[in-house]
Amino acid sequence: MRLLSFIENGRSAPGVRIGEEVVPVSALAGFPDDALALIGMGAEGLAKLAAAAAAAPASARRKLSDLTLGMPIPRPGKVACIGLNYALHAKEGGNPIPDYPAMFLRVQTSLVGPDQPMLRPKVSDKFDYEAELAIIIGKRARCVSQADALDYVAGYSLFNDGSIRDYQRKSTQWTMGKNFDATGAFGPEIVTADELPPGAAPLRICARVDGQTVQDSTTGDMIFSVARAIEIISEVMTLEPGDVIATGTPSGVGYARKPPLFLAPGKVVEIEVEGIGVLRNTIADDPAFG
Amino acid sequence: MRLLSFIENGRSAPGVRIGEEVVPVSALAGFPDDALALIGMGAEGLAKLAAAAAAAPASARRKLSDLTLGMPIPRPGKVACIGLNYALHAKEGGNPIPDYPAMFLRVQTSLVGPDQPMLRPKVSDKFDYEAELAIIIGKRARCVSQADALDYVAGYSLFNDGSIRDYQRKSTQWTMGKNFDATGAFGPEIVTADELPPGAAPLRICARVDGQTVQDSTTGDMIFSVARAIEIISEVMTLEPGDVIATGTPSGVGYARKPPLFLAPGKVVEIEVEGIGVLRNTIADDPAFG
Repeated sequence: MRLLSFIENGRSAPGVRIGEEVVPVSALAGFPDDALALIGMGAEGLAKLAAAAAAAPASARRKLSDLTLGMPIPRPGKVACIGLNYALHAKEGGNPIPDYPAMFLRVQTSLVGPDQPMLRPKVSDKFDYEAELAIIIGKRARCVSQADALDYVAGYSLFNDGSIRDYQRKSTQWTMGKNFDATGAFGPEIVTADELPPGAAPLRICARVDGQTVQDSTTGDMIFSVARAIEIISEVMTLEPGDVIATGTPSGVGYARKPPLFLAPGKVVEIEVEGIGVLRNTIADDPAFG
Repeated sequence: MRLLSFIENGRSAPGVRIGEEVVPVSALAGFPDDALALIGMGAEGLAKLAAAAAAAPASARRKLSDLTLGMPIPRPGKVACIGLNYALHAKEGGNPIPDYPAMFLRVQTSLVGPDQPMLRPKVSDKFDYEAELAIIIGKRARCVSQADALDYVAGYSLFNDGSIRDYQRKSTQWTMGKNFDATGAFGPEIVTADELPPGAAPLRICARVDGQTVQDSTTGDMIFSVARAIEIISEVMTLEPGDVIATGTPSGVGYARKPPLFLAPGKVVEIEVEGIGVLRNTIADDPAFG
């Protein structure tokens, strides 16, 4: 099943996409009209939702092209990001292969949904893309072993861990460069775990800028697999339904290219993972800087 | 005014403390019964709330000692923390005086309220305290100048930026050591900005472990003042009402002491800032590790 959120009357509403149509969950009896609550139903509840959406009459369906999408989870409780999780990307930045992940967090204000503009702040021209697989947690997880970890995954989505490189390196901590408003993107939808191979690997993962492929790898090359990442992170913090883990990016980011390739207003960046879809955003200037 | 939250019937409810009594906001007509919404009213709205609480009849008042308090803002949108903000603390850790703050974020699962146990994970015995002044944002702030920054502050509170030191240093990023479940504390209440000097400085700031003073400094020694911190952070991200900024800790933390002093089950840690109050927590083992 493919779960998305669309914006209507100023609020975000969940829907199930079937081909070029969307069944709003509000049209289905017995399901909460809230993305976080749906994710929290667990695999059995999600299977029931998929069946109900498939059985919905034509009158309950909307055209996908008529809808404005938002982040599939509008306000995730936490967005935990793995910094260096592909060996070639660690190498291109001059970093050793880590034996423990370099983790950082992103706040919700730093993220936009599919097709929404990603904003370049006036104070930097070092705006970089990062193609990532996103894990969506389906149930409360703490101190979960790698062997059990995939039971806690509701599904997967796409993530552009957009980064302001000079601010990322203004101190030892990457937080500022990772949290400018609207510099990252998440979506377009959540593909439930049953539709993908276990741990969403191996799947081809790519980034394109104005149609040119700039990252091209496989999720099978992750240093910390989906299951291992959940084990490591849940040793530290309780993961809750709807929490997002961005699993790191392969080599080919803009700052490490020769010559460097940074995002500028008008450019279109696409993140694709095989079997999940495409997350597309156009770059614009951040109007906050006037 | 002193705003707190108490837990009743499984939910968090805001109240105004007056001496040893609390006026639940639900007893006052015309005010939202929600801490975030109250903070978002702005200075004028908060002044009206203070007046209404002061005029509340005795029958509307509850004894403070009868209530169980929670974090004054139960689910802050973001908790942004400054890493090194007192010169002597930077020095005790062998770090240079920063010209840009080392920022990290804490997730809500890492925090508890006043008098709730702070949990030591079984995987570490390097659990450290950090006394901090917390800023509570009162209105949406982006690209705010230092000169205007204090207009965006609703009030101040106390923060114990409890840290698991070995995990903090497992990678270059401090995130994991700062985000173990229930290792930090926030509260007991928000003191509105009108009751403190501008920018909450200079005020004496202390930490005590089992009654022994282990940190003792003044908020006037911060490298990045409250106003300057808001200018720097709001250049990057939109600050929203109820967002919390933890402003860093003075020297005297446990790992830098000779011999080191770490928190262990049964120990009591207190954070105090002059004019704001005392945040007190007892250490316990985290039951998640069985």
